[in-house]
Amino acid sequence: MRAFFHADQQLHNPLQFMRAGRIANPTDLPARTDALLKALGENKIDVETPPDFGLEPLLKVHSRDYLSFLETAFEKWQAVPNAGPEVLPNTFPYWNATPGVSSRGECRPQSIIARTGYYLGDLAVPVGPKTWQSCLTSAHSAVAAADAVLGGDVMSYALCRPSGHHARSDRASGFCYLNNSAIAAERLRTRFHRVAVLDVDAHHGDGTQAIFYGRSDVMTLSIHADPSTYYPFFTGYDDERGIGDGVGANLNIPLQPGMGDDEFAAAMKIAAPAIRNFRADALVLALGFDGHANDPIGVLRISDKGFRMVGEAVKAFKIPTVVVQEGGYAIADIGSCLNEFLAGAR
Amino acid sequence: MRAFFHADQQLHNPLQFMRAGRIANPTDLPARTDALLKALGENKIDVETPPDFGLEPLLKVHSRDYLSFLETAFEKWQAVPNAGPEVLPNTFPYWNATPGVSSRGECRPQSIIARTGYYLGDLAVPVGPKTWQSCLTSAHSAVAAADAVLGGDVMSYALCRPSGHHARSDRASGFCYLNNSAIAAERLRTRFHRVAVLDVDAHHGDGTQAIFYGRSDVMTLSIHADPSTYYPFFTGYDDERGIGDGVGANLNIPLQPGMGDDEFAAAMKIAAPAIRNFRADALVLALGFDGHANDPIGVLRISDKGFRMVGEAVKAFKIPTVVVQEGGYAIADIGSCLNEFLAGAR
Repeated sequence: MRAFFHADQQLHNPLQFMRAGRIANPTDLPARTDALLKALGENKIDVETPPDFGLEPLLKVHSRDYLSFLETAFEKWQAVPNAGPEVLPNTFPYWNATPGVSSRGECRPQSIIARTGYYLGDLAVPVGPKTWQSCLTSAHSAVAAADAVLGGDVMSYALCRPSGHHARSDRASGFCYLNNSAIAAERLRTRFHRVAVLDVDAHHGDGTQAIFYGRSDVMTLSIHADPSTYYPFFTGYDDERGIGDGVGANLNIPLQPGMGDDEFAAAMKIAAPAIRNFRADALVLALGFDGHANDPIGVLRISDKGFRMVGEAVKAFKIPTVVVQEGGYAIADIGSCLNEFLAGAR
Repeated sequence: MRAFFHADQQLHNPLQFMRAGRIANPTDLPARTDALLKALGENKIDVETPPDFGLEPLLKVHSRDYLSFLETAFEKWQAVPNAGPEVLPNTFPYWNATPGVSSRGECRPQSIIARTGYYLGDLAVPVGPKTWQSCLTSAHSAVAAADAVLGGDVMSYALCRPSGHHARSDRASGFCYLNNSAIAAERLRTRFHRVAVLDVDAHHGDGTQAIFYGRSDVMTLSIHADPSTYYPFFTGYDDERGIGDGVGANLNIPLQPGMGDDEFAAAMKIAAPAIRNFRADALVLALGFDGHANDPIGVLRISDKGFRMVGEAVKAFKIPTVVVQEGGYAIADIGSCLNEFLAGAR
């Protein structure tokens, strides 16, 4: 199995994220990738640096204005008087915007403060001097992994960091800036007609859901902690089934806080036939380990073995699969989670 | 002329607001009301405590769920682990929500973190232990001032603090929690058929615009610094003219940064005939002094005399007028601004 990771993905070094009215210590630390790289090494999987694909595969998912914002925001921020050390938003377009006001295709106000609030959707996506470079190369890892599968591999692994599944076409949130799983899915669509994206990160894959919500060619499924009391809160309910052409091509399976391996497996038993009925030709597995019992921001009690179950389930689908790393912040445990996943999947 | 203010309006004591990625010193300080009270005293205007009107006049503008949130948020916040000293949001519904997802009438997720992001729209509206009491009594000052005009007075003054014009029916932002000007306008509508709200605060009155955007019975006008580079950024452009029945009953007159008394007067010369053509029977003047050259968060260069011009213009409308205090943060200057306004208006 081929794996992809670019050394620049470690450069993004967030200093802050806001939680419960305080600036908290960030959890998306560069050390996460060390733990995952170690697990790949133990499995004798070579890690390749992805080529530079430029912006083109990203533009299948993200708007050009948004990419330009991510690339230039930190530099523009330096001209703001009394600015903090990272680009962070403080004001936002109204979520329930007056119909006819506030265009939905572009950011009308030009100031960097406004653009920051337009494109950074919450207080968990600071932009630092190396954030863009890390995001770009993270996305390229996902593209390279998709290309490996396009070239005939049964499975590939993209060690993405920063993660992507909360990112929308024009908005970062929840540690995510570019939607790596969506980018991989679009890459697979250049050859495969029906692609499923199965997201097992503890948080609802809201960005991926939004990107494909009206589409019948990409099915999005997500197993996650109930959003009523857990990030991202506002989506991830089981009655979100798609819109227009996409009705029936979205499935959310929420788990209650405290649930563990048994319920995780039961959820997979719901997702698996849905993927088969959809007749997916290829799969993107958005693989987050933050459902693990030791995750510092988790509420589920999944064990390492729960991720072996995921690997076994994915193997049983028997369709070409791109595995895209999403979240998972228990640095002492995520290597073991990846080991178990690989043991089940290979 | 009667004026209204409740001592509890001084209790709200915000500790923080976030600006350019840093926690900054707040500017909506209790001392603002001291300066304004002093100016009223110099003008021999007695200040009356408004009665307790309860929630009923607020419910003409705000949803019950939102009022309940404001009243109970601080208490619920105490149960959040590692919470900061004030209720502040860190995550929000997506402003461009997927059609069919995220209800627009209520907050679906139940957790206090989610509700905080649903109802507090930016990082400038912290909720502390006395915020609700101050907001409630501030709104009651606006109601009492409207009742004075309903009772036959030509003009009245509500010394509102916190301010209101950025608040929407279910969302606080920009130091504003309850829309005092909108509440006053609805109060006037119990007798007057056509009410105009003229907002001369330096910031676009986006909340008031949104509340009445589809209505033909209340015209909203706002003279403010160009939102392209100034809060609230996403609304306040001159092409926002209303929607449905409200088309033609909204008028925005942006001024460029650096503009002063001359341009302020020219803007008033545009607003005045619009109010006359609308055939307003009564007026709410949303009076902010943050266009003053010395305002700590201002970009305009209006002098004290600019507010005398406003007073004279309002007097010339010859319609019953409720004056509602909005922003203005130059504590050494706002008393003088109010003096000049009163000299022009009485």
